[in-house]
Amino acid sequence: MEHIEGTTSVLAALAARHRRFEVILVRHDSHAEKVADVLATAEQLGVPVRRVDSKELDAMAHGASHGGVLAIVSAKPRLNGDQLLELVDGLREPPLLLLLEGVDDERNLGFTLRTAEAMGVHAVMIKKHLWDFDAVEVARPASGAYERLPLAQINDVEPLKQLQRRGLRLFGCLATTKRTMYTTDLTRGCILAIGGEKRGLSGAVRSICDRFVAVPTRGGASSLSLSHASAILLAEAMRQRHAHEFESAAMGSPTEDLSE
Amino acid sequence: MEHIEGTTSVLAALAARHRRFEVILVRHDSHAEKVADVLATAEQLGVPVRRVDSKELDAMAHGASHGGVLAIVSAKPRLNGDQLLELVDGLREPPLLLLLEGVDDERNLGFTLRTAEAMGVHAVMIKKHLWDFDAVEVARPASGAYERLPLAQINDVEPLKQLQRRGLRLFGCLATTKRTMYTTDLTRGCILAIGGEKRGLSGAVRSICDRFVAVPTRGGASSLSLSHASAILLAEAMRQRHAHEFESAAMGSPTEDLSE
Repeated sequence: MEHIEGTTSVLAALAARHRRFEVILVRHDSHAEKVADVLATAEQLGVPVRRVDSKELDAMAHGASHGGVLAIVSAKPRLNGDQLLELVDGLREPPLLLLLEGVDDERNLGFTLRTAEAMGVHAVMIKKHLWDFDAVEVARPASGAYERLPLAQINDVEPLKQLQRRGLRLFGCLATTKRTMYTTDLTRGCILAIGGEKRGLSGAVRSICDRFVAVPTRGGASSLSLSHASAILLAEAMRQRHAHEFESAAMGSPTEDLSE
Repeated sequence: MEHIEGTTSVLAALAARHRRFEVILVRHDSHAEKVADVLATAEQLGVPVRRVDSKELDAMAHGASHGGVLAIVSAKPRLNGDQLLELVDGLREPPLLLLLEGVDDERNLGFTLRTAEAMGVHAVMIKKHLWDFDAVEVARPASGAYERLPLAQINDVEPLKQLQRRGLRLFGCLATTKRTMYTTDLTRGCILAIGGEKRGLSGAVRSICDRFVAVPTRGGASSLSLSHASAILLAEAMRQRHAHEFESAAMGSPTEDLSE
């Protein structure tokens, strides 16, 4: 069993229904309005709630941001390769998957998952040996996205090859490549692969990439972190995919009217 | 006096020449090749270097990532309103400024500065009462950008109004507004204002914004952190400003050739 801290994560996990809940612990003196949603949802789903004192809660919690709510739950299930294919086959829009390699820290992973969800990513793939993260520390910055977003654990590149045979294209993000994300079609089914700052993408993944793309920067000594490069790349995929929903940008138009 | 930790930050500060260096402390047993650049630059600039044992270094350092190098330096100067105007007047391209309100943590600020530099921001403005950050904790995730990027301290909105009178437009980032960044001209001189997750932009800043813009997300429960919203908004400014340098994106083109 693991635990989840804070109302945002607990509510997201209750709604996502990916985890089995053993009990939700709520601090005796919690403000009624702050835990009202948790209590109501727990009752609706038949999850037991136990009132505890703050000492008991603090002893279990990994951080100070639980706000008086902590749930004892089963681990969030990870999709295997077959389940990932099933998920992809069931989508009604071109799949947008994110592959992360070499994430070096829980907080960066959490923020990356949060942004990935906000940009419409359908699932995030992480290699098996990178799964020794503290789930609580990943979940906190993810602001609920850790609970809602499908996460797949892959042991080698075989699932990537299977997805490629399904028609998905594998784009590796490389700072040094000349072609930018702006000249790459991200509207069709694709996997965006991003490597950690220390080692970048693995040779195994590089060797099967359909193309490498760069997130352009000003150059010089400037650089992007993994989670911010991901954010910018995913936002470009979203822009291309939803371009028809935005008015065309009045780029540099001198007649643009600000008075509206 | 403050201090700077790690070769990346120390080298960036030596190159930027914004700070006065009192001494650079280098651990006795540092790998010669890891500190070679620091030693060479220090000698060139006449900055004294003192060899110390790791106990002394650890006692001064705020973190464990100094890698055996720490510099005692004057605080990084902050531009006042007049100096900011001077900087803007001296630019040869349309100014791109970032205004941050309600940043709640050193790490997020550091990452935001790093991304801002990479996206071509000319200066970052932060309100006075938000300056009680530990500079070492900001500098570490900023990966040198904290040393290179001009930072301005503003006490009220007067400098923003002065910049508006210079022709810069003030765009406030609001998740709830309908107009997206894609339909807003970011190619001309502008200030992009982003508020913290808790309270958003202040009333004082909102009241003088020329327009509000949204970073589109998938909606639902998903959301973006301040530093990731900044990254995506700044990348859109960069895309619009440098669109002519990128080939036009082959959006959805079925003939796109991946074989090259």
